[in-house]
Amino acid sequence: MKVFSYKSEDKIGLGVLVEGKAYAVNTNQSLKELIEKNYFDKDSISKVLSPDSKPLDFDSLTLTPPVVNPGKIICVGMNYAEHVAEAGGDNKEEYPTLFVRLSSSLTAHKGQIIRPSVSEQLDFEGELVVVIGKKGKHIPKEKALDHVFGYSIFNDASIRDYQLKMPLLTMGKNFDRTGSFGPYIVTADEIPDGAANLKLETRLNGQVVQSANTKDLIFDVPYLISLISEGITLEPGDIIVTGTPSGVGWGRKPQLWMKPGDTCEVEIEKIGVLENNITDET
Amino acid sequence: MKVFSYKSEDKIGLGVLVEGKAYAVNTNQSLKELIEKNYFDKDSISKVLSPDSKPLDFDSLTLTPPVVNPGKIICVGMNYAEHVAEAGGDNKEEYPTLFVRLSSSLTAHKGQIIRPSVSEQLDFEGELVVVIGKKGKHIPKEKALDHVFGYSIFNDASIRDYQLKMPLLTMGKNFDRTGSFGPYIVTADEIPDGAANLKLETRLNGQVVQSANTKDLIFDVPYLISLISEGITLEPGDIIVTGTPSGVGWGRKPQLWMKPGDTCEVEIEKIGVLENNITDET
Repeated sequence: MKVFSYKSEDKIGLGVLVEGKAYAVNTNQSLKELIEKNYFDKDSISKVLSPDSKPLDFDSLTLTPPVVNPGKIICVGMNYAEHVAEAGGDNKEEYPTLFVRLSSSLTAHKGQIIRPSVSEQLDFEGELVVVIGKKGKHIPKEKALDHVFGYSIFNDASIRDYQLKMPLLTMGKNFDRTGSFGPYIVTADEIPDGAANLKLETRLNGQVVQSANTKDLIFDVPYLISLISEGITLEPGDIIVTGTPSGVGWGRKPQLWMKPGDTCEVEIEKIGVLENNITDET
Repeated sequence: MKVFSYKSEDKIGLGVLVEGKAYAVNTNQSLKELIEKNYFDKDSISKVLSPDSKPLDFDSLTLTPPVVNPGKIICVGMNYAEHVAEAGGDNKEEYPTLFVRLSSSLTAHKGQIIRPSVSEQLDFEGELVVVIGKKGKHIPKEKALDHVFGYSIFNDASIRDYQLKMPLLTMGKNFDRTGSFGPYIVTADEIPDGAANLKLETRLNGQVVQSANTKDLIFDVPYLISLISEGITLEPGDIIVTGTPSGVGWGRKPQLWMKPGDTCEVEIEKIGVLENNITDET
């Protein structure tokens, strides 16, 4: 099943895609609450979607990030060996490079990624997202996948000059509306364990710029969940953005930046395609 | 005026301290909404607090962080020269070291700072907090203080081994309930411009362990607001945690860690005292 959020008059609506058809979920509860209550298992959802439920026209909806305001957006850097190499990093790091994104940095599928007025160095980064389904702390690796609700896609678009000129990389990763998340969450039952061995491809104006496979993640999904939960309680709706493979624009000669009018797509096998247009900050 | 939040049955109550007396604010709106509406200026608040308003017993309240779930918690590292030196850093950095804390890492005045089960390296860091009052982007330094609602205190307690063994410092700064924030926000009209030239002192079990003055901030409040807002829209209730001075436990010989049963206080002149007990994770 696929779970999405969309703008519905002045509030956020919640919907599911079942067998290619989109249905609104009538609820006053948040996605986080519904995930916590196992609302999206097949039996529960079939009770809500009666045979005569009227489908939505999915393509005409204005989507928001599937989790609009995640309690935590924990991102991983340097998680594919070839990307570590192109970034001039050290392959011998024992631990992953973690950083946090603010919700204000998110944008949605078919929404716009904003190129800021202060920089032209807007770079793409296609990534796999893990959405947490069950609260936990000190989660052993062997139990980690029990805490996953589903998987989604991220374009961790980065303002490279800000990322590199300042210590840490916080600011370059947190410009308003640069991190695209969506189009929906695919529940874990439809995806191989840990979303391992899925093809990931990023295309800029149709040209393939990143091509990789999630089997090459240095720190895999169970490890990340286990490590983070050593200190941080993971909650339903929290997301872990697992890092980008090689091919980013910064590492190319000449460098390649996204610019207004461009279209960037990130596709992950069995999950879908996340598409965004680039526009200038106004 | 001082603005605080507290546990009131099953919800979060909001209160103000006026001339040493605490009053509940009867509202269904969030602190962020009220800040945005200039609710806390003296004329507006006098309308709410009629002469016969019954004071609360402030000392018996269970406080929460004054902003319970800030939209952004943007923290600054390496912002006092003597702390940069004790941390073995480089004083020539042109830009501040920024990182993000998750709301799940917060704890409140008189609440407990949790020493995690996986580490004994729980270190104190007394810091000045800036609370944003007015939305803004591309805020020039000269206008930055117009965007400040008030000031508060933070104990940016850090798990040093996690901070140092992993790239960036994200995890060591984000353990559950390690970052104490409070006791209240003092509105900017009661504090010198930019909270400059205020004495800051951290005491562990009554012993002074950090003693500094906010005039020694390398990157001051107007600069931080201006820089961050180059890329990130600041919103009411967002907080900037401005960095700690020298004296942290990690830099001492022998090193000094907080342990269960300890009491840690951070005092900032004209703002107040933030006090916490340390307890072990259960």
